[in-house]
Amino acid sequence: MRLSKYFLPILREAPREAEIASHKLMLRAGMIRQESAGIYAFLPLGLRVLNKVNAIVREEQNRAGAIEVLMPTIQSADLWRESGRYDAYGKEMLRIKDRHEREMLYGPTNEEMITEIFRAYVKSYKDLPLNLYHIQWKFRDEVRPRFGLMRGREFLMKDAYSFDVDYESAVHSYNRMFVAYLRTFARMGLKAIPMVADTGPIGGNLSHEFIILASTGESEVFCHKDYLDFEMPEEGIDFDDRAKLQGVVDRWTSLYAATSEKHDADAFGKVAGDRQVSARGIEVGHIFYFGTKYSEPMKADVTHPDGSVKPVHMGSYGIGPSRLVAASIEAFHDDAGIKWPEEIAPFNTAILNLKQGDGMTGEVCEQIYRALNAKGVDTLYHDLDERPGAKFATTDLIGIPHQVIVGPKGLANGKVEIKHRADGSREELGVDQAIAKLSGVKSS
Amino acid sequence: MRLSKYFLPILREAPREAEIASHKLMLRAGMIRQESAGIYAFLPLGLRVLNKVNAIVREEQNRAGAIEVLMPTIQSADLWRESGRYDAYGKEMLRIKDRHEREMLYGPTNEEMITEIFRAYVKSYKDLPLNLYHIQWKFRDEVRPRFGLMRGREFLMKDAYSFDVDYESAVHSYNRMFVAYLRTFARMGLKAIPMVADTGPIGGNLSHEFIILASTGESEVFCHKDYLDFEMPEEGIDFDDRAKLQGVVDRWTSLYAATSEKHDADAFGKVAGDRQVSARGIEVGHIFYFGTKYSEPMKADVTHPDGSVKPVHMGSYGIGPSRLVAASIEAFHDDAGIKWPEEIAPFNTAILNLKQGDGMTGEVCEQIYRALNAKGVDTLYHDLDERPGAKFATTDLIGIPHQVIVGPKGLANGKVEIKHRADGSREELGVDQAIAKLSGVKSS
Repeated sequence: MRLSKYFLPILREAPREAEIASHKLMLRAGMIRQESAGIYAFLPLGLRVLNKVNAIVREEQNRAGAIEVLMPTIQSADLWRESGRYDAYGKEMLRIKDRHEREMLYGPTNEEMITEIFRAYVKSYKDLPLNLYHIQWKFRDEVRPRFGLMRGREFLMKDAYSFDVDYESAVHSYNRMFVAYLRTFARMGLKAIPMVADTGPIGGNLSHEFIILASTGESEVFCHKDYLDFEMPEEGIDFDDRAKLQGVVDRWTSLYAATSEKHDADAFGKVAGDRQVSARGIEVGHIFYFGTKYSEPMKADVTHPDGSVKPVHMGSYGIGPSRLVAASIEAFHDDAGIKWPEEIAPFNTAILNLKQGDGMTGEVCEQIYRALNAKGVDTLYHDLDERPGAKFATTDLIGIPHQVIVGPKGLANGKVEIKHRADGSREELGVDQAIAKLSGVKSS
Repeated sequence: MRLSKYFLPILREAPREAEIASHKLMLRAGMIRQESAGIYAFLPLGLRVLNKVNAIVREEQNRAGAIEVLMPTIQSADLWRESGRYDAYGKEMLRIKDRHEREMLYGPTNEEMITEIFRAYVKSYKDLPLNLYHIQWKFRDEVRPRFGLMRGREFLMKDAYSFDVDYESAVHSYNRMFVAYLRTFARMGLKAIPMVADTGPIGGNLSHEFIILASTGESEVFCHKDYLDFEMPEEGIDFDDRAKLQGVVDRWTSLYAATSEKHDADAFGKVAGDRQVSARGIEVGHIFYFGTKYSEPMKADVTHPDGSVKPVHMGSYGIGPSRLVAASIEAFHDDAGIKWPEEIAPFNTAILNLKQGDGMTGEVCEQIYRALNAKGVDTLYHDLDERPGAKFATTDLIGIPHQVIVGPKGLANGKVEIKHRADGSREELGVDQAIAKLSGVKSS
């Protein structure tokens, strides 16, 4: 993409209302614009990151055997009356009356609707297990939306719902998502640690929040330091292998890890002092087995092999892609701006033309631009008539992992410079070498 | 995808409320489920088609130079008061009050919001032309939603908005979208004819509806038959070439074409009798230059080269992907079911195992399945324990373009059968030949 044909509205200063790094940087980098309190438009650069996050989430859901659907945003109140949640849900539910005075709502979550879909079609254990997910906009009417995408009102959510014949099978479905989540966050460069979460009246221990450590995190968390070095499950892992998945889950739940709500100071005290991590964290995912909480009142029953008919066992599994974009920035930024991990960077490489209008410089930029595009590298060509300093600042701000800096001085020696945003390292290379090097860079 | 691991809830009979072919077939083929009046969930098969439609729309928008953003669904009433449309818009607007009693609405369209985004960042002719689009859910509270996705309440819309310094430049932006729309529909196998549409108080002739002919169409249309044989603009067309694009537009508006609202019987009478087409049509796209209708009241001004400051010239360009899915079915179906065009088929090939449990048959099916997946062909393997007749019926119903029929009888001669859904033609081939043939089939 040529910047001269793109829409990248950079702000010199962050609007005053922005309190945390991700909010400030997303506004300054022209990624989002607030349209109402807690409601944002994604500008082109922000949408590119969101789409890359979605693509990873989707790939890992599919790999784990979940099947994508797409439920609508507007739901009927009657559906929520079946589960008893219409009255129980507080003011965070955006309630709506349509032109015929029918009570509707903007879905804050989809347990009721997916249960309605399930019961309409599935009647037998033979059609189980089943896991259906979608990626759709949700609305929660927060009393005080803030921190940009971190606590917005309209937000994107991937929510998956599993259906199983019994508890044992449901545990395996839960474990599939547990492993998928580990892979999903790791692929984005994030260290997400599963922490036991509250299960409320359901009981049991099948509820985990996935938390990344970041100084601006909303909650206090405590965990064993070894988690930070655990490896993610391999790409080819067999999601049908119950024992194997259980082994992964056992390992990832073997050490201490808890949010402040579930914190047990005594248990944490038993962790060796140099292995204790006490930090702030951001929740980026939540998985939850809730058994027959919805299937029982909503009569989503299945016949068992012995002919009996029982409510189906369910779990739900959420990731907020729009929130993840912000959380990634909290984890990866410095004073100059964002430092995108390779996998979710809006562009992987930026070409900086240091002397716009200079024939030779322009030609080499074009050559590199064409070559990288041909190799499928997402490339932003900064071809505006701006000072080099402004170009450096913009490219650092928007966090492109690799910059190719092309100017007459270097070209006199047949060289261009590559700067890597992650560590600030630089190298001088010939044009062909630079192209070869950058083509090895991962992209979508 | 193995059908045994998929979610494809086929209905034997169409629910009684479905009146038109696309609605009936989408329900029967397990593509959608109604959740409320005019509000549908996309089941896995339906979502696959919707995503393929979106991908084509997106590719052609990008090719024409439009840049993707993503605006939220919920908008503030104040924004619409600026343009004067909040009061003018009727009961089709879904009006909402949030917990603080602020007036909000579910966007039926986005002229106001995109104008707000534009004026926040763009001040100069130097940043023009600009075309921003998004693909997002909209809501229009139809008094009597019907015909399934054809006239739903919550629907997906691609809407693009162009910004230009003056009328001449706006015409070129309009022509870009005109050409992009021709290519978009043609790639989906649809013959869409641009017909002059009403411009209301704006005047001029820069408004076209793109109409496909289908017997269940909502409106009566009249056009010259030659349009049906016109070729679509080539992939490599230069969207910066004003004269070239104007030539395409001139050609595609040179012959008679009008909906009943704009029909001129005298002018139509001058078309040679054997070239007159009088039919029913479905609107699948609408493009519209509206000048300064929104930029003037909303003060979206740009400075001109001479230093003057004037309201920007705008146009909007809509395609409804969810409606297009239904419209395609209206255009492509027979008594047995849907006949998907290659480019938007949910799967391009289905493998039918005629004797589930038979070792040799199963092995060959697996071999073909693996080979086609490796080649990137979207393949559905019908591996359920059902009679051959049921498998034929399902595969015809869901409209997969190519079926590989594998049974012990054919295999005894080393053959499998390929059936093409479009024309019902069949051929017997060796396994390797069949794989080679089907690998040439286009897919996503």
